[in-house]
Amino acid sequence: MAKSIQMEELTLGVCYYPEHWPEELWEDDFRRMRELNISVIRMAEFAWAMLEPEEGVYDFSFFTRVMDLAHSYGLKVILGTPTATPPAWLTHKYPEVLNAHQNGELIKHGMRRHYNYSSSKYRELCERIVRNMVNAYKDHPAVIGWQIDNEFNCEKNVFYAEADHAAFRVWLKEKYGTLDNLNKAWGTVFWSQTYTAWEQLHLSQTESPNPHLALDEKRFISDNVISFARLQANIIRELAPQHWVTTNGLFGHLDSHELTDELLDFFSYDSYPQFSTIFPGQDEKPLMDRGWSMSLSNVRSISPNFCVMEQQAGPGGWVDRIEMGSPRPGQIRLWSYQSVLHGTDLLVYFRWRTATFGTEIYWHGINDYHNRPNRRVREVAQVGGEFAKIGAAIAGTQYQADVAIMQDYDNNWDAEMDKWHGPLQWQSKGSWYKQLQYRHIPADVITLRPNTSLEDLTQYKVIVYPHPAIMTDDTAELLTRYVEQGGKLFFGARTGYKDPSGQCYMRPFPGPVAELCGITVEDFTLVKGSIRAAELQWEGRLSSGTQAVGFNEVLHVENPEVKVAAEYATEYYQGEPALTRRPLGKGEVWYYGAAYSEPVVDAILDELGLTSPIADWVDVPADVELGIRASENASYAFLLNYSDQSVTIQVKQRAVDLLTGETLENEVEMPAYGVIILALQ
Amino acid sequence: MAKSIQMEELTLGVCYYPEHWPEELWEDDFRRMRELNISVIRMAEFAWAMLEPEEGVYDFSFFTRVMDLAHSYGLKVILGTPTATPPAWLTHKYPEVLNAHQNGELIKHGMRRHYNYSSSKYRELCERIVRNMVNAYKDHPAVIGWQIDNEFNCEKNVFYAEADHAAFRVWLKEKYGTLDNLNKAWGTVFWSQTYTAWEQLHLSQTESPNPHLALDEKRFISDNVISFARLQANIIRELAPQHWVTTNGLFGHLDSHELTDELLDFFSYDSYPQFSTIFPGQDEKPLMDRGWSMSLSNVRSISPNFCVMEQQAGPGGWVDRIEMGSPRPGQIRLWSYQSVLHGTDLLVYFRWRTATFGTEIYWHGINDYHNRPNRRVREVAQVGGEFAKIGAAIAGTQYQADVAIMQDYDNNWDAEMDKWHGPLQWQSKGSWYKQLQYRHIPADVITLRPNTSLEDLTQYKVIVYPHPAIMTDDTAELLTRYVEQGGKLFFGARTGYKDPSGQCYMRPFPGPVAELCGITVEDFTLVKGSIRAAELQWEGRLSSGTQAVGFNEVLHVENPEVKVAAEYATEYYQGEPALTRRPLGKGEVWYYGAAYSEPVVDAILDELGLTSPIADWVDVPADVELGIRASENASYAFLLNYSDQSVTIQVKQRAVDLLTGETLENEVEMPAYGVIILALQ
Amino acid sequence: MAKSIQMEELTLGVCYYPEHWPEELWEDDFRRMRELNISVIRMAEFAWAMLEPEEGVYDFSFFTRVMDLAHSYGLKVILGTPTATPPAWLTHKYPEVLNAHQNGELIKHGMRRHYNYSSSKYRELCERIVRNMVNAYKDHPAVIGWQIDNEFNCEKNVFYAEADHAAFRVWLKEKYGTLDNLNKAWGTVFWSQTYTAWEQLHLSQTESPNPHLALDEKRFISDNVISFARLQANIIRELAPQHWVTTNGLFGHLDSHELTDELLDFFSYDSYPQFSTIFPGQDEKPLMDRGWSMSLSNVRSISPNFCVMEQQAGPGGWVDRIEMGSPRPGQIRLWSYQSVLHGTDLLVYFRWRTATFGTEIYWHGINDYHNRPNRRVREVAQVGGEFAKIGAAIAGTQYQADVAIMQDYDNNWDAEMDKWHGPLQWQSKGSWYKQLQYRHIPADVITLRPNTSLEDLTQYKVIVYPHPAIMTDDTAELLTRYVEQGGKLFFGARTGYKDPSGQCYMRPFPGPVAELCGITVEDFTLVKGSIRAAELQWEGRLSSGTQAVGFNEVLHVENPEVKVAAEYATEYYQGEPALTRRPLGKGEVWYYGAAYSEPVVDAILDELGLTSPIADWVDVPADVELGIRASENASYAFLLNYSDQSVTIQVKQRAVDLLTGETLENEVEMPAYGVIILALQ
Repeated sequence: MAKSIQMEELTLGVCYYPEHWPEELWEDDFRRMRELNISVIRMAEFAWAMLEPEEGVYDFSFFTRVMDLAHSYGLKVILGTPTATPPAWLTHKYPEVLNAHQNGELIKHGMRRHYNYSSSKYRELCERIVRNMVNAYKDHPAVIGWQIDNEFNCEKNVFYAEADHAAFRVWLKEKYGTLDNLNKAWGTVFWSQTYTAWEQLHLSQTESPNPHLALDEKRFISDNVISFARLQANIIRELAPQHWVTTNGLFGHLDSHELTDELLDFFSYDSYPQFSTIFPGQDEKPLMDRGWSMSLSNVRSISPNFCVMEQQAGPGGWVDRIEMGSPRPGQIRLWSYQSVLHGTDLLVYFRWRTATFGTEIYWHGINDYHNRPNRRVREVAQVGGEFAKIGAAIAGTQYQADVAIMQDYDNNWDAEMDKWHGPLQWQSKGSWYKQLQYRHIPADVITLRPNTSLEDLTQYKVIVYPHPAIMTDDTAELLTRYVEQGGKLFFGARTGYKDPSGQCYMRPFPGPVAELCGITVEDFTLVKGSIRAAELQWEGRLSSGTQAVGFNEVLHVENPEVKVAAEYATEYYQGEPALTRRPLGKGEVWYYGAAYSEPVVDAILDELGLTSPIADWVDVPADVELGIRASENASYAFLLNYSDQSVTIQVKQRAVDLLTGETLENEVEMPAYGVIILALQ
Repeated sequence: MAKSIQMEELTLGVCYYPEHWPEELWEDDFRRMRELNISVIRMAEFAWAMLEPEEGVYDFSFFTRVMDLAHSYGLKVILGTPTATPPAWLTHKYPEVLNAHQNGELIKHGMRRHYNYSSSKYRELCERIVRNMVNAYKDHPAVIGWQIDNEFNCEKNVFYAEADHAAFRVWLKEKYGTLDNLNKAWGTVFWSQTYTAWEQLHLSQTESPNPHLALDEKRFISDNVISFARLQANIIRELAPQHWVTTNGLFGHLDSHELTDELLDFFSYDSYPQFSTIFPGQDEKPLMDRGWSMSLSNVRSISPNFCVMEQQAGPGGWVDRIEMGSPRPGQIRLWSYQSVLHGTDLLVYFRWRTATFGTEIYWHGINDYHNRPNRRVREVAQVGGEFAKIGAAIAGTQYQADVAIMQDYDNNWDAEMDKWHGPLQWQSKGSWYKQLQYRHIPADVITLRPNTSLEDLTQYKVIVYPHPAIMTDDTAELLTRYVEQGGKLFFGARTGYKDPSGQCYMRPFPGPVAELCGITVEDFTLVKGSIRAAELQWEGRLSSGTQAVGFNEVLHVENPEVKVAAEYATEYYQGEPALTRRPLGKGEVWYYGAAYSEPVVDAILDELGLTSPIADWVDVPADVELGIRASENASYAFLLNYSDQSVTIQVKQRAVDLLTGETLENEVEMPAYGVIILALQ
Repeated sequence: MAKSIQMEELTLGVCYYPEHWPEELWEDDFRRMRELNISVIRMAEFAWAMLEPEEGVYDFSFFTRVMDLAHSYGLKVILGTPTATPPAWLTHKYPEVLNAHQNGELIKHGMRRHYNYSSSKYRELCERIVRNMVNAYKDHPAVIGWQIDNEFNCEKNVFYAEADHAAFRVWLKEKYGTLDNLNKAWGTVFWSQTYTAWEQLHLSQTESPNPHLALDEKRFISDNVISFARLQANIIRELAPQHWVTTNGLFGHLDSHELTDELLDFFSYDSYPQFSTIFPGQDEKPLMDRGWSMSLSNVRSISPNFCVMEQQAGPGGWVDRIEMGSPRPGQIRLWSYQSVLHGTDLLVYFRWRTATFGTEIYWHGINDYHNRPNRRVREVAQVGGEFAKIGAAIAGTQYQADVAIMQDYDNNWDAEMDKWHGPLQWQSKGSWYKQLQYRHIPADVITLRPNTSLEDLTQYKVIVYPHPAIMTDDTAELLTRYVEQGGKLFFGARTGYKDPSGQCYMRPFPGPVAELCGITVEDFTLVKGSIRAAELQWEGRLSSGTQAVGFNEVLHVENPEVKVAAEYATEYYQGEPALTRRPLGKGEVWYYGAAYSEPVVDAILDELGLTSPIADWVDVPADVELGIRASENASYAFLLNYSDQSVTIQVKQRAVDLLTGETLENEVEMPAYGVIILALQ
């Protein structure tokens, strides 16, 4: 079902922009790529102005020349369609293709993604350049696949051009049929917002729009991206059926699962863990670069094996923002294996050489401006050598996990605007992921979708679905069956009080899952401003300092099977249940009336007795990520040391490090940023 | 003179939105309201789209049906005119009715108060809906009164539509007659701003407009609101003379005193003390929810007995902002009595049941979405029972105070822009109010108006008028007479240096009151950035840590009667007078060359010997508010415990608690959020 | 070559706005000015609406009347052309003259500098008012010179009106000739930005524009200001060749050196050291008001002797911002001598009397609103008396310095947008200037320009050119010659990696000066976010706590002559060179791979053995600024005590204080804010 990339071996690639460099450099570049074991290059995704210098005038010779040379060096090529950056002549002549701010002001030419997905003129021009481009290159022997556009919804994920308002109206008509249905779904009787003609409708035009409109707006944007991408996918499928199709990046307001299912062969991701140095997080001992594993896990739920189309290969930054320092020696390699552990079989570095002009002169490639040897080139060479050695064994194996953190698009999108469950989402997912990481319990990040089946869920022993505010009875039924068959399911505060329109149910919280959980919410309060978080008491033992953060729901046990795992120990609801567990069938469902914090997750993991799946084999300190890629025949444990210090691991059963061929046992020293891949029997 | 609501007894009401609920719920709702002793409902203020679904097409049947049913349950109805939320068809067809940002960009449909008060089209449409609505309901037996629009100037209190610029020009012509007069009043010769044609004039269009224009702009907005409200008031007076007329809320750029005097029977207020949990204040031991007493005191200066049209009955918040946690058990009742103490005779909770859709799904009513019993309903039931018992005794009695904090609209409006006296205003009023509260000295908050008489002032022993930058000789004369007859008057820094245009007098500070105070200002400095506040020395005793905050004026004694109460103890003006007092006639006038801080107010109160008016009767801790409502025949002391802890009060003379009928003496325990109403003698 | 003001003696002036005051005050004002030894007044720079009340209708009688009276009191007059504040009739009739925000929205009338420099209509109207004004006043005996406009680029230094976009296109055509050249210079092949028609070009229209465009934009703005100023200068030169021409203020995006060279007789500055109380700086022991000496030094590089057209004479502030407290007694005089020390020969106070209306009612003049004697008037009177005594001796002498901090416009402008060298610039210049100040080593601030000669540089023993990211081989050659002849030259991180377009060289850092420095940069990292700054170790001695801030470049010694002055002591580049020195000819060149911090500058100054030039004569504490003005015949040491405490200086050789005539020796007490001027030899 899931759409994975199909690689025979772990493969290295690099993004390359021949249009930025004197032609005389190309050959040396290609020769050196091959020395590093790089066999794939990505190109052309920002080159519209070269391919169509004037409207209707095409010139495909440049990249043909590049690809001929690349081919002569045995390099394969991924071509990007150039629609992320319409040329100046285009936006000048057709300003209606531009995106707009919420107030209607056009977003002018000069950066990228300055267009909207709705303009019929832009769609026409995009179809034409893509058709011509695919026709021009489809038979070139170097080409293996296509990237559609570049990083959909990156930087900008809201769209307010006139064409967007019009497209939204069409989308609404299709969804609701009548204005009466729409008015009901959006509760427009509130504040006299009732619509009496379709032309009165717009995407949000105020700071605090109708929240149901705001939710539909995000659904529309996602559908609109997919509709835009489909135009291109269809052309490629028609003209170049022998090539695969993908696109890259994981950004807001886009259902990447649906996009992939409908249009792509597999999904691709752009991984820049150095962002963690700019936004290290406010929590104690934050995950930093290791946090990227959570995003990679999310990608893995789309394509178990996937491509990283851009892997950080140096410091990053635009001229005027996003100032990232240099990865430390070993980190580029570490992050490469982080991607591999989580399912990457084709890893493409961004980029070959740092651009000497433009906005991204500080988004460094492997090579510096000066093009002389440097430590980043040497580090990539090491990875290249290692891939040559281990690539065939690893390719096609998949990440193994018994625990899943579950989310869904509706709740994520609703959470953006809704301050009564949004902040809880990030708090709880982060706390769970972090504690699972530090305790070496591999976890997946999965997405509940309309077509999610019971089988999709039963592969997990534990599912954490922390704050599904929007919840239906159908989903409740699916989750009940999951628990009955043996699953352990965790909810948090604000579960189940909204319907798919984002309207609140006239039912006691947690609505559709109240019966499943065996509790109702008796009283509640946001914890914010001067409202204090209550302390928790765990089954009689005072767990001092463990607070119920974010929200406090006072639970009322409705079902005698329910056990109270923790009570509130302070505030006016002292002594009332805070965390409950109900055995059901072979499984158990937990409800927590707050947002999950790390100490609370820790206490729960203790209670569950979850540990590393290879705890008998190897003991690793918290700083080291542990994960397993396996197939039916083989199993490989990845140990990744994110610390800038060397650490000691205990190997209890002898094992071979795939990278070095050495047999490890007893105390083994891992250097700072070190990587070990143990072949498990 | 003052316009009070006339109630026979304390009365409970609730806001109710039948259009949000299935019709089958109404009867149960009305029945349960009566069980809680609720006898009034407010409705219809956001229902324009229901009343006039298409332009010129009216349908008043819905609310007739609701009111018939309400009437059958003995409920009275307050109807709101629906002009705060023009329907989508209206703003779509007539975009000129929309308000605009300062840059002229229209504020689009989607929230509320998106209209401007100036558009002749909007005024026409409003008159028409109001005339039709009043005609439709004026004879309904349930209706008792009307609320005009809703919360004038809430959220937005500036208006920059084209129609506003035009109306401003008309207002200016009327005020100034000639451009020459206007140019002089605004000092337009500065920076070459001279106007030579009326059409050159606009409301402010820049970040830092001419400050005299900015002051006139606020006066214009206030006049414009009143002019807009008058259209509706006139219609109601004409068609339904048997009903009272009010409006609700206390917001910026509106002279609510004038509005009430000219158009209303009494003023109404919306009281949400839980806002204090979001903005607790930066000071030590802030007043929190108790600070709402200051706003209620201000309302009392408009209508000694008034209506609270919206009383907080649960957590509040929009979907995307204003996240307030839940009131703690007892707080809803406490705040209800806070309103009553300060003059409320009709108290209307917001709202019956929490809306399940729209922007305000988190602005909780008494009932939760699920409509089952909860603690808020029980708490309101308690209040309802108590009102039944005490309501007749309390209704019509009025708050008693010997101390007044005085302000005026001109200075408040000028203070918004002016950083040289604005920050002092909030600092000083807050410090005085807080220390008076903590020392149980009841205080009024009064507004000096053009028609304020000596008699209005002489009812107070002490008046604090902290920083009247704008001051006239006429006012100085009135204040002089107040002091002569025995009043104690307090000024602070920056008094008296501006004329009513906001231009600075060419007179030594404090201008018109320099002679009254017997001092002039010799030197001065803002205290800001790295400029230090001087320490103070009180008549030879070093009061360490008492600083002269905000501004330091070095005073020069001009009149030998003046005594120096405190000197500066540091900075280059060490040893110079900071606080002076001048006996005059039977009274005394004080001048302080800084903003009042709490320690300074404390020292002054010690000096004045002010104490609780019933200090011989009862001793209460600082956490408890003490106030008295009295008539000629009766007197009731309210004790309100804002603390989340129980406290002990000392009753020195036996007294009966009106709420329980118990006789109290000696040590009496008040629970957290407890209320006691002592019948005095 | 340098254009200095030519004064016979130090001269006092004051800004005066007769249009703000009743005519009956003028005579008293002029009389009192003379009593204070004020002999020059500046006026009329905001009076367009008075001079041309309607389009084409002129009235020059008002200022003639003022000047006649002023002349009768022996006062000289500087006239400002009134083009900084076009009147309301003008902007109302010709909105195209207004400046616009980046999004194209016009900046409305109401403040100042609301116009753009490009509008042909505005240029026409400006030429006409200036021509008429100069004709009207050129023969008035009081007039001595002209100030063009007022504070070019103050408040707003970006311009986006339609006329600006058009003028930018013309400027680009002239600079680049062809679009192909422009496309290459801007690297437009990046992100498909290639321009194919001139009309596609605009000034920046996005948050993150092409950085090469952004650099050219600033060059264009500077050229555009000069072109606008030239219109006025030409008229004055033509009609009033006997008068001098200047303009005032040092603001962004204007090459004031070029402006002065091309159009002015000398440059003028507006000095408001009290701004330091609002923005005291984040560093330990910040320079505060003393930091203004750095700006004055910059002005001195344009005109060694210059005019301060506005010298702070009281508290400052607009009604709604920039709240500055009062200068303390002595500070106005101290700052006056600060200006004089650094080259001011004509010092004009802002302003005679505080305006009673308009935006600047808190930008206090010498006199208060009330016009009575105050301490500021007395302080100015003291300065007036002193100028009478010492003015002839000091006038025309010039500041002496052996050390220069060098900058250039291109790098300053590029640094505004570029976060990879911009922050380093301010860090390093500030650290050097501060430590030189505290160690009493007089320093110049100089600007490297296309016409800078070797002789311009060789007058300095030491030149610090901290982060010239943009660097050419020609400049490298000039600097090499400077070092060879004996200079000591200091660079910091990020030197020499960009060409004049702002494109990065394909050369090892530091590009053109790599050979000169004898090093290359092996590795590097921004120090930001969670990236740590390395510690430094100085030639074997651990200098604990000295960190390499801002950026860390790992240096590689290429030339055996190079000595390592400091190594990194931590991080993965521990032991690698951080600071190197290379002897070359008679001089030495230093390269530091980070931004200069104060401890690092301190260590370097220790190494260099630089001290006060009169260390044998006088010892002063760090709080006192020491500087020398000298001519061929005389030399005066200024000692300025910025502390609010008295300090003791040691006079080792007897010397006369020019201000008092007293002979000083041994321990001498300087009062807080005291000034001593020692006549040397």
